[in-house]
Amino acid sequence: MLTRIDHIGIACFDLDRTVEFYRATYGFEVYHSEVNEEQGVREAMLRINGTSDGGASYLQLLEPTREDSAVGKWLAKNGEGVHHIAFGTEDVDQDAAAVRDKGVRVLYDEPRTGSMGSRITFLHPKDCHGVLTELVTSRAEH
Amino acid sequence: MLTRIDHIGIACFDLDRTVEFYRATYGFEVYHSEVNEEQGVREAMLRINGTSDGGASYLQLLEPTREDSAVGKWLAKNGEGVHHIAFGTEDVDQDAAAVRDKGVRVLYDEPRTGSMGSRITFLHPKDCHGVLTELVTSRAEH
Repeated sequence: MLTRIDHIGIACFDLDRTVEFYRATYGFEVYHSEVNEEQGVREAMLRINGTSDGGASYLQLLEPTREDSAVGKWLAKNGEGVHHIAFGTEDVDQDAAAVRDKGVRVLYDEPRTGSMGSRITFLHPKDCHGVLTELVTSRAEH
Repeated sequence: MLTRIDHIGIACFDLDRTVEFYRATYGFEVYHSEVNEEQGVREAMLRINGTSDGGASYLQLLEPTREDSAVGKWLAKNGEGVHHIAFGTEDVDQDAAAVRDKGVRVLYDEPRTGSMGSRITFLHPKDCHGVLTELVTSRAEH
């Protein structure tokens, strides 16, 4: 069961400049940063608020580490902006199976590693009214 | 001070079908629906979780009521997808003035009426790394 907006994934050309924009404009600070080579991104997580399921909601700023990564190709086509949204769940395997049974294409056979040791999968945007949608179980939950 | 992700605004061609997708796929229910003639949208708010500032995070599904509305023009150009993101604050007037002072273009001279009696304004996406950004104070807060 999906119990929170876990994060909003925002693609940018220059992570450092975008982090600085969010800090200077709103006072949002970097909670965590990492490079995910499998996803081909360098990223910063800005924690915005806690959530009623015991988790939190973040902005996830994403800079591609290579042009042929999913985010790199998306940026070349669309420019900077919201790349995906993510819902948090205690059990990404169960929720991914449930949405697959409803005819929504799940992009990974098995969940992969996301930010901060989470387990994630993505749903096809064409099956979700144009929204690339991630399901995520945080490390504390799995 | 911005204290939560208030909502993610998603533009769609057919509100009823999109509401049904979110209900059937994830079990999300409509918390509130309304027509905002000033904004030129028919909308449904799906409440996803409570937030640590005493508010909540929603998905806001938006169908234009006329082609020449901001959302109508955006949909014609982009197709369905994430239209904007919104941060919640106790004082939208103060936060709008603060970001204006930092050189970010604020689209309204004064906040207007948003969902559920909230007061809202928007920041120019070109000043926000491609993200149309809304600031919102809920009715309970103002």
